[in-house]
Amino acid sequence: MRNRLPPDQYISGILAGDRLVLSRAITLIESRRPDDQALAQEVLTGVLNRTGHSVRVGITGVPGVGKSTFIETFGKYLTDQGHKLAVLAVDPTSQRSGGSLLGDKTRMEQLSVDPNAYIRPSPAGDSLGGVAHRTRETMLLCEAAGFDVILIETVGVGQSETLVHGMVDFFLLLMLAGAGDELQGMKRGIMELADALAITKADGDNRPATDRARVEYQNALHLFPPTGTGWSPPVLTCSATTGEGITDIWQLIQNHQELMTRHGHRDRRRQEQQLAWFRSHLRNRLESRFFQQTGVAEQLKAVEAQIKAGTLLPVQAVENLLRNI
Amino acid sequence: MRNRLPPDQYISGILAGDRLVLSRAITLIESRRPDDQALAQEVLTGVLNRTGHSVRVGITGVPGVGKSTFIETFGKYLTDQGHKLAVLAVDPTSQRSGGSLLGDKTRMEQLSVDPNAYIRPSPAGDSLGGVAHRTRETMLLCEAAGFDVILIETVGVGQSETLVHGMVDFFLLLMLAGAGDELQGMKRGIMELADALAITKADGDNRPATDRARVEYQNALHLFPPTGTGWSPPVLTCSATTGEGITDIWQLIQNHQELMTRHGHRDRRRQEQQLAWFRSHLRNRLESRFFQQTGVAEQLKAVEAQIKAGTLLPVQAVENLLRNI
Repeated sequence: MRNRLPPDQYISGILAGDRLVLSRAITLIESRRPDDQALAQEVLTGVLNRTGHSVRVGITGVPGVGKSTFIETFGKYLTDQGHKLAVLAVDPTSQRSGGSLLGDKTRMEQLSVDPNAYIRPSPAGDSLGGVAHRTRETMLLCEAAGFDVILIETVGVGQSETLVHGMVDFFLLLMLAGAGDELQGMKRGIMELADALAITKADGDNRPATDRARVEYQNALHLFPPTGTGWSPPVLTCSATTGEGITDIWQLIQNHQELMTRHGHRDRRRQEQQLAWFRSHLRNRLESRFFQQTGVAEQLKAVEAQIKAGTLLPVQAVENLLRNI
Repeated sequence: MRNRLPPDQYISGILAGDRLVLSRAITLIESRRPDDQALAQEVLTGVLNRTGHSVRVGITGVPGVGKSTFIETFGKYLTDQGHKLAVLAVDPTSQRSGGSLLGDKTRMEQLSVDPNAYIRPSPAGDSLGGVAHRTRETMLLCEAAGFDVILIETVGVGQSETLVHGMVDFFLLLMLAGAGDELQGMKRGIMELADALAITKADGDNRPATDRARVEYQNALHLFPPTGTGWSPPVLTCSATTGEGITDIWQLIQNHQELMTRHGHRDRRRQEQQLAWFRSHLRNRLESRFFQQTGVAEQLKAVEAQIKAGTLLPVQAVENLLRNI
């Protein structure tokens, strides 16, 4: 791990599409060491003008919806079409271990040996923001290395969907037919962020149910506020087993990309994403600088207990903290 | 404005339900003067154990949905039932002026002269977070003054809905029949936050349309992820003109309150709201402390321009800022 290359070698290796160098550069991004971080920033800056030329697609859905098999089938389709595909993830539950990596490779058997696909599991992190942050930077490196489609997967729990939505051009929500317990665990508000819904497992006996679900969701989406870009999120069905619907989804993403690019929405969306990323990173750094000071952690704990008990007001609590530190 | 009372007089006045003292205390909360702020915190702390005993209802909907007439009719119904009602607002577009206050009084003619209703327009503020912050504190003072129903109105644009959702027990979304341009300006993701939808203007020729909309939205809501509390957001119709549906909405809110209280959800929601308020206030204070330093504003502007142009990475930008200041 401690063998670092000079910055120029990372940069030229990435730009030449050298996957080994790419992986080593991503390891820098994921490292907590300040010298690694500085080196990572130097590398990123060096490839910055070669980034941005990919279609960035976020994919989410509750566990059990079949995300991995979908990505396996969809990914194979893309590489067959001549695309170079990177699959990244924002998964706050992943622990950094061989297991996670092994898991991803096992989940996507064909894709993991495809020379035109690059799978990188979710970075670990102390905070979800940190995890998302590293995935963003990894995405940029992958673009510089020539990958022209980036899929960013998120586990369907909590805040990670919003963060992934904030780094992609197209946000695809995978859904199961039947709107009962399957939705448990999906964060409310996510449906309205989706650029498209795809009902998975549209094969065999499940076909009537998925067709019904498609119509229901399509009707429901018509009731949502418009996106403001002229795009109306459609609902499709697909099957990772038969491959049905997979072509349509890619066609849809291309239509969306074409429409968004034509009207300048894509660049605006990316600019806003960059600014939002900057602001949240600045906030996080200011916060962590504060929290790292001696005594803050204990005081914070005490203060939060009082707030929960209803004996201390938030403003008072903040003033006390700031005064004591 | 500069005549301040001693803290005890504010506290006893508020607890006695003296509306003049209440108004003067709210003015302290809205003041930017540090000494007023300190006094406001003392008053708030003094009444803290008398807060929390109200039903907190957030009301949102796009301009034109009829929020003011709804609140006028709904509010009159509540005071007729013997409730003491406070109507507050989070409106980032409001400018602190006689106009705004006059506007609210004009909009709610009957309620504004009702001895059991207290209407306070939105505080002005440099940031939406600041506006919401002051409304939260105002809500606590109103509770201490004996108001047992608090309605918090928000204009249906941007982030204010999420903030109001974060300070109430029940979040009511007013909707118009017809899901076209009327929804323009409503933030996506809001529908899924609602504890109930009410289709307004259900009278005269508009009845068939509102009935149809009710069924459509009800079907759509069934497709949303469950709330996790056992509550399924219903869709009602109502008319501020005929008064139809107004009783049902209050009954619904009471049912919700009863269910949430029984299972401890209400207290948990309020605790989480308090903690979230604390954390966001802490973040804001750390940020504003940073931004107030000499040179930050200019550097920030320069840095954000570079980020938008795609020539500077967010992390680099943050590090530069932190190093230079």
